[in-house]
Amino acid sequence: MSHRKPAHKRYYFEDFSPGDVWEMESPPISKQEIIDFASRFDPQYFHTDEEAASHSPYGGLIASGWHTVSLCMRMICDRYLLNAVSHGSPGVSQIRWLRPVRPGDRLKLRLTVLESKISRSKPDRGSVMHRWEVFNQGGEMVMSLEGVGILARRQHGAPA
Amino acid sequence: MSHRKPAHKRYYFEDFSPGDVWEMESPPISKQEIIDFASRFDPQYFHTDEEAASHSPYGGLIASGWHTVSLCMRMICDRYLLNAVSHGSPGVSQIRWLRPVRPGDRLKLRLTVLESKISRSKPDRGSVMHRWEVFNQGGEMVMSLEGVGILARRQHGAPA
Repeated sequence: MSHRKPAHKRYYFEDFSPGDVWEMESPPISKQEIIDFASRFDPQYFHTDEEAASHSPYGGLIASGWHTVSLCMRMICDRYLLNAVSHGSPGVSQIRWLRPVRPGDRLKLRLTVLESKISRSKPDRGSVMHRWEVFNQGGEMVMSLEGVGILARRQHGAPA
Repeated sequence: MSHRKPAHKRYYFEDFSPGDVWEMESPPISKQEIIDFASRFDPQYFHTDEEAASHSPYGGLIASGWHTVSLCMRMICDRYLLNAVSHGSPGVSQIRWLRPVRPGDRLKLRLTVLESKISRSKPDRGSVMHRWEVFNQGGEMVMSLEGVGILARRQHGAPA
């Protein structure tokens, strides 16, 4: 149950059908953001120290993989999740970090709905299995993920 | 290749054998930390708005699942990864968010080595498959994860 008063369309389980594709994009990732996230959560030198990173196998500063995932989460929040009635996520079945994400990169996230299922035990909601494919501005895939979100079903009479 | 001058033992691939268990613990998670992370990366109301969250199905503010994962990453960095020669991670094969993480919770992470394999294509390194089991101060499991890290092999003559 969200207590915000949405100005936008509300999204429900029924708005996610297998094969549906949602696309979204992030602003460029700054060097400072990469360093700030990593300093708190993943202070390996190739995430936090530009000079040392330039001598690393990556040839420069790269974002923590958890930072990349978190930036994708934010894109999804902005695109639909903040206007959905979400019951969270039980988990993720796969993440692949395929290529480094570097300062200045602009990420594009393509979310594809793989499967949707009404809950048997709680018929007011359903699970949506989805794949994320994340590309940089050069069109290279940098990350993929498969996971599940639980969304409320649209009730008869609920605002569309 | 790390350019830091470690005061501690260096860790290599050989230090992670199947069945090995590493245990670590976080300081209590503050309400402000939960809100700060979520405001940036996962601004769903039950992660950012204490009053609204109290009326949610969770009955109060809870941490973003990505925040919990990131806090675990930091525990691992502090425990051994910053003193290891890491070649990053190709990915994760599973994350399960089992119970909410709340302000004041102290997380314990138990990392178990599942498998270790020398790389065929790059024999200077090996992959270590591990499971994380994350508990709160009440001993309840809040999260689990299975993933892979790539670590350098200890070379003949390298400092132990």
